[in-house]
Amino acid sequence: MDVFLDAALDEARQGLAEGGIPIGAVLVLDGRIVGRGHNRRVQRGSAVLHAEMDCLEQAGRLTAADYRRSTLYSTLSPCDMCSGAALLYGIPRIVVGEHRTFRGPEDYLRSHGVELTVVDDARCVGLMRDFIAARPELWHEDIGVD
Amino acid sequence: MDVFLDAALDEARQGLAEGGIPIGAVLVLDGRIVGRGHNRRVQRGSAVLHAEMDCLEQAGRLTAADYRRSTLYSTLSPCDMCSGAALLYGIPRIVVGEHRTFRGPEDYLRSHGVELTVVDDARCVGLMRDFIAARPELWHEDIGVD
Repeated sequence: MDVFLDAALDEARQGLAEGGIPIGAVLVLDGRIVGRGHNRRVQRGSAVLHAEMDCLEQAGRLTAADYRRSTLYSTLSPCDMCSGAALLYGIPRIVVGEHRTFRGPEDYLRSHGVELTVVDDARCVGLMRDFIAARPELWHEDIGVD
Repeated sequence: MDVFLDAALDEARQGLAEGGIPIGAVLVLDGRIVGRGHNRRVQRGSAVLHAEMDCLEQAGRLTAADYRRSTLYSTLSPCDMCSGAALLYGIPRIVVGEHRTFRGPEDYLRSHGVELTVVDDARCVGLMRDFIAARPELWHEDIGVD
């Protein structure tokens, strides 16, 4: 069990409790969580606050040196936008809860030197499976699909 | 002269007047601006609100079909994060004011079918040249560089 993935999962569940899309993320620096967030599409009418983006926003303005020592945890494989954010800031490690529901540009991240690990956590899979069954239109909106 | 690039430039100048990084963007749908924004790093302590992200956020929750008919204008070549946001939503056209100051993953966007045009607008170039000369540390922070 990874306490940081658990923390990301807590964020995902908090999002679900708010009526939102249950995806969570945390940013870890030197063994400590410095940012945490969850998808805010529903809660804030946001088109950009995916879990990873919300997490980076909550972490605030870090130095390049800080980002380069950090690890981003997300319950779901990061999409093009969130992967791009990790590349922008040179985040070297990403731990992904699962990529059965959705798979972002993982090979592209790896080709840029990112160490990406997929845990295949059944709790993360189940959370999204149940959510998508209940609210497919919200999920499709979140990934830009009709 | 492109009125939409001019609108993005107006956003960049507004950001500068607020003490921020002078990069602006607008999203155009069916010949009409539906979102506009500028970099908010300084103004909101934001790590994610680059001009293009702020613009997409201001545009609100659009349908996939809307994004697929839209054009994103930015005064500066979009970084990995902002390019990723365009890919996430399937925005098919991006008009870039300039890419002398910074060049994002333009070839990657094109390889995904995005029609990307670089105007090489002297006003956009000058705005960033003067800003970076005055505040290099802010600019470096914005692109994740030490």
